[in-house]
Amino acid sequence: MKLTKLLPLAAAAALLPVVAFAQDSDVAPLAPAGTEVGFIFTTFMFLVTGFLVMWMGAGFSMLEAGLVRSKNVTMQLTKNIALFAMAAVMYYLIGYNLMYPGDGWTITNVLGAFSLTSLEPVGVGTDAVDLTYASVGSDFFFQLMFCATTASIVSGTLAERIKLWPFLIFTVVLTGLIYPVQASWKWGGGFLDANFGFLDFAGSTVVHSVGGWAALAGALVLGPRIGKYTKDGKVNAFPGSNLTLATLGTFILWLGWFGFNGGSQLYMDTAGNVADISRIFANTNTAAAGGALTALVLTQLLYKKVDLTMVLNGALAGLVSITAEPLTPGLGQATLIGAVGGLIVVFAVPFLDKLKIDDVVGAVPVHLFAGIWGTIAVLLTNGDATIGGQLISIVIVGAFVFTVSLVIWLVLKMVMGIRVDEEAEAMGLDRAELGMEAYPEFTNG
Amino acid sequence: MKLTKLLPLAAAAALLPVVAFAQDSDVAPLAPAGTEVGFIFTTFMFLVTGFLVMWMGAGFSMLEAGLVRSKNVTMQLTKNIALFAMAAVMYYLIGYNLMYPGDGWTITNVLGAFSLTSLEPVGVGTDAVDLTYASVGSDFFFQLMFCATTASIVSGTLAERIKLWPFLIFTVVLTGLIYPVQASWKWGGGFLDANFGFLDFAGSTVVHSVGGWAALAGALVLGPRIGKYTKDGKVNAFPGSNLTLATLGTFILWLGWFGFNGGSQLYMDTAGNVADISRIFANTNTAAAGGALTALVLTQLLYKKVDLTMVLNGALAGLVSITAEPLTPGLGQATLIGAVGGLIVVFAVPFLDKLKIDDVVGAVPVHLFAGIWGTIAVLLTNGDATIGGQLISIVIVGAFVFTVSLVIWLVLKMVMGIRVDEEAEAMGLDRAELGMEAYPEFTNG
Amino acid sequence: MKLTKLLPLAAAAALLPVVAFAQDSDVAPLAPAGTEVGFIFTTFMFLVTGFLVMWMGAGFSMLEAGLVRSKNVTMQLTKNIALFAMAAVMYYLIGYNLMYPGDGWTITNVLGAFSLTSLEPVGVGTDAVDLTYASVGSDFFFQLMFCATTASIVSGTLAERIKLWPFLIFTVVLTGLIYPVQASWKWGGGFLDANFGFLDFAGSTVVHSVGGWAALAGALVLGPRIGKYTKDGKVNAFPGSNLTLATLGTFILWLGWFGFNGGSQLYMDTAGNVADISRIFANTNTAAAGGALTALVLTQLLYKKVDLTMVLNGALAGLVSITAEPLTPGLGQATLIGAVGGLIVVFAVPFLDKLKIDDVVGAVPVHLFAGIWGTIAVLLTNGDATIGGQLISIVIVGAFVFTVSLVIWLVLKMVMGIRVDEEAEAMGLDRAELGMEAYPEFTNG
Repeated sequence: MKLTKLLPLAAAAALLPVVAFAQDSDVAPLAPAGTEVGFIFTTFMFLVTGFLVMWMGAGFSMLEAGLVRSKNVTMQLTKNIALFAMAAVMYYLIGYNLMYPGDGWTITNVLGAFSLTSLEPVGVGTDAVDLTYASVGSDFFFQLMFCATTASIVSGTLAERIKLWPFLIFTVVLTGLIYPVQASWKWGGGFLDANFGFLDFAGSTVVHSVGGWAALAGALVLGPRIGKYTKDGKVNAFPGSNLTLATLGTFILWLGWFGFNGGSQLYMDTAGNVADISRIFANTNTAAAGGALTALVLTQLLYKKVDLTMVLNGALAGLVSITAEPLTPGLGQATLIGAVGGLIVVFAVPFLDKLKIDDVVGAVPVHLFAGIWGTIAVLLTNGDATIGGQLISIVIVGAFVFTVSLVIWLVLKMVMGIRVDEEAEAMGLDRAELGMEAYPEFTNG
Repeated sequence: MKLTKLLPLAAAAALLPVVAFAQDSDVAPLAPAGTEVGFIFTTFMFLVTGFLVMWMGAGFSMLEAGLVRSKNVTMQLTKNIALFAMAAVMYYLIGYNLMYPGDGWTITNVLGAFSLTSLEPVGVGTDAVDLTYASVGSDFFFQLMFCATTASIVSGTLAERIKLWPFLIFTVVLTGLIYPVQASWKWGGGFLDANFGFLDFAGSTVVHSVGGWAALAGALVLGPRIGKYTKDGKVNAFPGSNLTLATLGTFILWLGWFGFNGGSQLYMDTAGNVADISRIFANTNTAAAGGALTALVLTQLLYKKVDLTMVLNGALAGLVSITAEPLTPGLGQATLIGAVGGLIVVFAVPFLDKLKIDDVVGAVPVHLFAGIWGTIAVLLTNGDATIGGQLISIVIVGAFVFTVSLVIWLVLKMVMGIRVDEEAEAMGLDRAELGMEAYPEFTNG
Repeated sequence: MKLTKLLPLAAAAALLPVVAFAQDSDVAPLAPAGTEVGFIFTTFMFLVTGFLVMWMGAGFSMLEAGLVRSKNVTMQLTKNIALFAMAAVMYYLIGYNLMYPGDGWTITNVLGAFSLTSLEPVGVGTDAVDLTYASVGSDFFFQLMFCATTASIVSGTLAERIKLWPFLIFTVVLTGLIYPVQASWKWGGGFLDANFGFLDFAGSTVVHSVGGWAALAGALVLGPRIGKYTKDGKVNAFPGSNLTLATLGTFILWLGWFGFNGGSQLYMDTAGNVADISRIFANTNTAAAGGALTALVLTQLLYKKVDLTMVLNGALAGLVSITAEPLTPGLGQATLIGAVGGLIVVFAVPFLDKLKIDDVVGAVPVHLFAGIWGTIAVLLTNGDATIGGQLISIVIVGAFVFTVSLVIWLVLKMVMGIRVDEEAEAMGLDRAELGMEAYPEFTNG
């Protein structure tokens, strides 16, 4: 262990003169940026942060499986592993090209991926490599996991009543079209980035609110679970079947978020970049803590009893809140930004119930509401953000995703139906739809 | 997030001229290969990929604990953690030296490890270090995890009826002798590598089929569980007790496989190597997706109901299928190679049942059958592979492992018995053999 | 896979001439130490090992949730996620500054963190960066996780009877004051380091025994669970409710420990440092194996039945035992050091019961007793350690932590009470205190 503490970095920008100093010193400068060493650093960083984000797929699975009733667990697991696999294929076939259209959305560009032998969707016949960035494979791997995350958000809200195949068809459209198209507006150099100066570092809006909007549209079309809301205005609680796994899922997501936010720095080829990634790790952690503690204290104050599921969702809301800007806040600011996320969850969950919108796991408060908050909170610490740019981007992305999602859910409802019949819902989707229980020996009856 | 997409790498080989270009450019070249920087890159890569493979031990534990009935869960967990610990000790004492015999299998070479003070099994008295590769400790750590993985494969097949200690004794032989001896034939520079040009990048044959053959031999000697196959040819399903944990185990294995295949590149000291590792990550992911989706669609078509356990095993079979050659395929090819793995599982599981071979978790279809397929599939994308070299190696490894395993299982059966008595099997191994239930409060009865 | 095995490294020190050799050779030397490349290596190493230690928070949660009865699981989960969040905030606000006081514990130094905009607790107004080490953010992130680990240890011992809020208040004091103050004595350059030559590489004493002493003090004040010890001297076993999750928790901790011990090397900017980290990974793994196997064999011999919970705790005790010195032992020595840890657990668990000290998960044997053993075991392989320095440091840290903890527990007992009433304890803390069950559908209540 170390003996002395280093002097702090005021901010990443401050590193520039430092690096310059290093290059003037006696030791070999070894400035890695733009060289093979820098390329290896950044590429490996994408692989490590990418596998952390991949791991979030397991986190969503455990969180959702833990929060549904045991009669619907197998279905929830099936949806989660299937959507993760579908995202992998759709993002390869279409999504990655749509998101980074390069010269534009031409047939060749978008459908180039159908060449089986290419690692890359776009079949450009050159083997040039840009040592100033990272390998294409690592970039693809990392970006794919963001697409899969977006799809994971939707499944929780719609649990316990949606049919398997309509959900999976929606996932195909979401991962192949909706997500990449709107992501291209910001991260593909599109108009939100170029014209509105929209800032969304790792995707409070581009990932989390998108999942939230799609889930909200689905919940509206689908309607609440039978018995959730009674005619006299009562809200029945349907307790989750396995809070240990819900907690495990939250820890997995918390861990994966270091990759989600940290990897979004996109470069690890300078001292400044790796110092930035370090700040992002620390801020991401403390924002989650702020969200969890706020929900802990608030539920104690409001209900006289701490509510574990609120604490878990509070931590997740804290993570979503810091995602749009995990770099510029100090630790204290990051804690408070996360804390507001936790506060949003505590009040938004009963608020949705008041509107009779049945969100089984609380994904809309966590990913949509805290996502909007996080996008606005960029204004607090990043001078480059503008109120107009943030708000208009939130609205444009929201309007697009919500509308398209609503149309698709409605079409699916008309064409094939999206909801199981009442008997199946009462029996549970596992037995009715899949003929396989998740815990065949545990439950009574 | 990035704004523009890089041009693709056609293949790793194409990087060689690129690197050369970098060395001619104005920026400091910083070509790390052969230097201390390259040594750190590769060593750290082994540590990161090695801990991912270590994590697969948890994956197998959860998968198997989830797929057995609750009365046998404690036993399954005990076997899994014990085999992992035994692999660590046996591979250190004998295995690593057997696998990399250097000048040959002399007493000194093989038993040098018994020197307690040496990190290294072989007690060579020199402190030279080869900056062109990685530290010995990292290589040992990484290779050890492959040995442990092989042992993990066996425990699932033989669940719910094998005694603890005979199983652990077999594990000692497998990890100390069988695995390292056959692995030396390929990875230790032995005759499969030198004379047959056998290609097996990360071990579809050397690891997965070996585990599968050992498990198959054990299943034949052990016989099926009581009541699994009735006299009138009916096959009774014994549903797994906890599909959430089985799904978690699959996600863990999926994650760990990035280390398994990625680390098998063995070098991360050039832009070409790290780009290759990136391709391997992307291909590994998409092969799992291909396997999962194939099982998803096939079980829907065949049985009118999606079968989650098939989807999980489909993903794993996809992973096994791509393991022999995760580098040369394009994304589309990798998806299809994985998809065939998923198809194999869907048909092989009932096929084994028809033969009355009782493989509790489906490890033989996943690791042996898909392992053979993956080894053959090398021919599809790697021009250096030969039909003869691949087939003869599959046969030689299979014959060796199956025969030796069979003999050991038979000897163990004669000497001490390998199967619990009928009463214990009916009661469950947890209460009968261990006196400790995994879920004492959950089950009825 | 590689074909040939490298010659072993005798020890890290042996690398020095090697590096020198590299610098004389024809290839560009690329000696990264002290340069931007070295800074990136070490910083990224802290981020990777830091997220592994963060993951241990999930490990403790699963281990403890699995080892308590189902009626107390929600409470155990709530404590674990809350303490992790509290550690994040307290270590930021006070702890990090207390632990590394720099010029001393002045008001300015210690309370500088309350500046919200600073990433760093200490508000020094310079932006100098020391390229010979790592970024401050990465150091903070890594050190924070050790503080959180200490708090996690306490919660298991006191399970099933302690009230939520007194426990959390104790956590605030532990993470904000007790842990950082005593840690400063060794790792902050304090008197145990400067005057006694105390050696504790990754914290057998500084982390694990501290958690153990705090837990022991709490257990004494709190008293045993109702019915645990009968008047006629019988000890009733209260079996854990979910051994699968306890096993998962152990695997998570095992994985996280690579970060815990490996990251404590503190540098990855030379071939020697990364080779040392590799040795540490290998030794950490084999020590866990030694502990697990010892408990496996011993429980078979003593009780004629293998005890899974002992095997799990044996692995953990092996890990704690190697933590004070994971670098200098050879693989064989590390295995034996871990094995003694396993032996300690097997005998210490019933010993504590004889003293009627009710430690629900066995944290005192694992973290305190094996922690003391590990600290003494440094003498076996590290010539720089002195008997006096090790023993006196164990005693000083123990006396301080135990006394302060005892006082705090007693004050909390007087002021607000720390134990739930008998009715609540019998009903279970989940229903009585939280109104939320972890497995509402599983148990026959």
